[in-house]
Amino acid sequence: MIFYTFTEQHLRQFTENVFIQMGCPDTDAKLAADVLLRSDLRGIDSHGVARLSGYVRLWEKKRINARPVVKVVHETATTATVDGDSGLGLVVAPFAMKIAIEKARTYGSGWVSVKNSNHFGIAGYHALMAVEQDMIGISMTNASPLVAPTYTTERLLGTNPMCYAFPAGKYPPVVVDMATAAAANGKLEIAQRANTAIPEGWVQDAAGKTSVNPHELKAGGSLLPLGSDKDHGSHKGYGLGATVDILSAVLSGANYGPWVPPFVAFLDPPNDPVGEGIGHFFGAMRVDGFRPAQDFKEHLDNWVARFKSAAPIDQEKPVIIPGEPEYAAEKERKKNGIPLIDAVVDDLNALALKLGIAGLS
Amino acid sequence: MIFYTFTEQHLRQFTENVFIQMGCPDTDAKLAADVLLRSDLRGIDSHGVARLSGYVRLWEKKRINARPVVKVVHETATTATVDGDSGLGLVVAPFAMKIAIEKARTYGSGWVSVKNSNHFGIAGYHALMAVEQDMIGISMTNASPLVAPTYTTERLLGTNPMCYAFPAGKYPPVVVDMATAAAANGKLEIAQRANTAIPEGWVQDAAGKTSVNPHELKAGGSLLPLGSDKDHGSHKGYGLGATVDILSAVLSGANYGPWVPPFVAFLDPPNDPVGEGIGHFFGAMRVDGFRPAQDFKEHLDNWVARFKSAAPIDQEKPVIIPGEPEYAAEKERKKNGIPLIDAVVDDLNALALKLGIAGLS
Repeated sequence: MIFYTFTEQHLRQFTENVFIQMGCPDTDAKLAADVLLRSDLRGIDSHGVARLSGYVRLWEKKRINARPVVKVVHETATTATVDGDSGLGLVVAPFAMKIAIEKARTYGSGWVSVKNSNHFGIAGYHALMAVEQDMIGISMTNASPLVAPTYTTERLLGTNPMCYAFPAGKYPPVVVDMATAAAANGKLEIAQRANTAIPEGWVQDAAGKTSVNPHELKAGGSLLPLGSDKDHGSHKGYGLGATVDILSAVLSGANYGPWVPPFVAFLDPPNDPVGEGIGHFFGAMRVDGFRPAQDFKEHLDNWVARFKSAAPIDQEKPVIIPGEPEYAAEKERKKNGIPLIDAVVDDLNALALKLGIAGLS
Repeated sequence: MIFYTFTEQHLRQFTENVFIQMGCPDTDAKLAADVLLRSDLRGIDSHGVARLSGYVRLWEKKRINARPVVKVVHETATTATVDGDSGLGLVVAPFAMKIAIEKARTYGSGWVSVKNSNHFGIAGYHALMAVEQDMIGISMTNASPLVAPTYTTERLLGTNPMCYAFPAGKYPPVVVDMATAAAANGKLEIAQRANTAIPEGWVQDAAGKTSVNPHELKAGGSLLPLGSDKDHGSHKGYGLGATVDILSAVLSGANYGPWVPPFVAFLDPPNDPVGEGIGHFFGAMRVDGFRPAQDFKEHLDNWVARFKSAAPIDQEKPVIIPGEPEYAAEKERKKNGIPLIDAVVDDLNALALKLGIAGLS
């Protein structure tokens, strides 16, 4: 595998150009590029520019609307439902999160459920928007069904991530940003490329037996929920995935469970939809709605310091604070650039050729 | 093991009498008994009357205040912090949840963080208070440190449960009520009594190696987070436990992490507290703050029906909807009574003798 390294600015400009060629307004193209770049900067390579062609293919299939009229369709003082008008989730999600933040500014908290959207990038981007305002940020989305709940062979849930982000004082924000499956699809893809066995407990085969074959999903298998099996709490991972699905889609009027449209453009959405597009859920709570922000941050710093200093099992592996590795990656990559594997670079250059814009290099 | 079965009313009266002997006001005694009985009715035997002596021992140590002045110490339109005045969590938690519900009634949502409290029983009780008002209920608490985050040998988190409850239409409410550890302490206790090996992935020994010894916690071992090990996502279980800890305690001013006072009265609380008592967190959101409640319930019914009809791996084990087994147990036990094991009956009769009230049988 060969890596090529690009500056943030170069990749950002390229990404904006792609979205502009799709017909997005300039401000939307900038915002969508910012969400993708933040993912690459934070070291979550699977959710950054590597997905750009995927978005374009959905747009080509008319499943993404490049000029959506995103609007609030239902609300109270602190709750709202947003219709994303089939827009890029990368644009719809920040729109919704801003509403949650504005409501929180006035009333202490704000909560927004979203329908008729598409893939929103990393959950952490949206939750961190609240953290910048000294608020706690919450962000979730449902996704293409790949995960089988405990006891079934059917894929009924996505990897449905949930994110909780908290502002600290001298430390970086604490960001819990996690898929509710046992293993992220990205980890599976690495094993697929290397053609190596995966640990038991990540996937099951079409009959519901645990499997170490990284290609099992292509043969009718499923990802397993966090917990892997009943004895180890897979019903909890399933319960968390269900929670994300209900808050994101049953609450907003989006598609849920097995009706969620697939991210890949070569698979058509179900022809019996139960809602519109995919769904997200966002929340913002003012820290000083509970105690002075300074007190909260000092205690969160103390929490972080205590956990960081915990006795390690292996001296070379200290306890990791949620969000710390991504924060470190962001600092490093802003300085030294973003490495992309050759397959992604080739894919992006082919995309540029197709869209008639300058390639990456 | 011998079981004795008691009517709900008999156990309820007994439990109220115990709390009255502790000096609780009548309404508090009734409420606290209701929380414990609900747990026994719902089949969560570990959190019901089996814990009654534990509460009394904490009261004897003056760690529970039977006549607390519970009050709001900080608030905005939709957020509040409650000081539990060292009261029974069984009383403090419903007080806080009522505030969340009232705020939600007026503004769409309400969120309450609680400090200076004690063990609050089952998280589901409090979340279901919101469901009865056609709201989504959320409930969490931190707890005595027993769980080691990924990569450390130290117990820094409790089993920190989180609960999300949703009102359905023709089906029972969907209630996701789960500890964020791989296995509940109750499961471990069953293996301890039987002296049988436990599955790998539930606990680690004092050196941080996975262990099948059910007595490992007494030898300096720890419970493991949901996910069990890094390969299977234990950092996610750790992240969820951390989220509960921060929302419940760093936000309210309660003790967090290793400073949480132990539930067992024979262990003293740390002598360097970072806050007051233990912490909880509650939320309520009006369903009709997002879409008409009837629409939500119809779609949640459709969600439930689809998941219930999923192809089972084993024909005798259909997919379980979160909250369904507890709902079924409640119906059955209301009718046929609550079975208690002899050890619990003996313990409660000894308690009655000590307090000078009538025993169970």
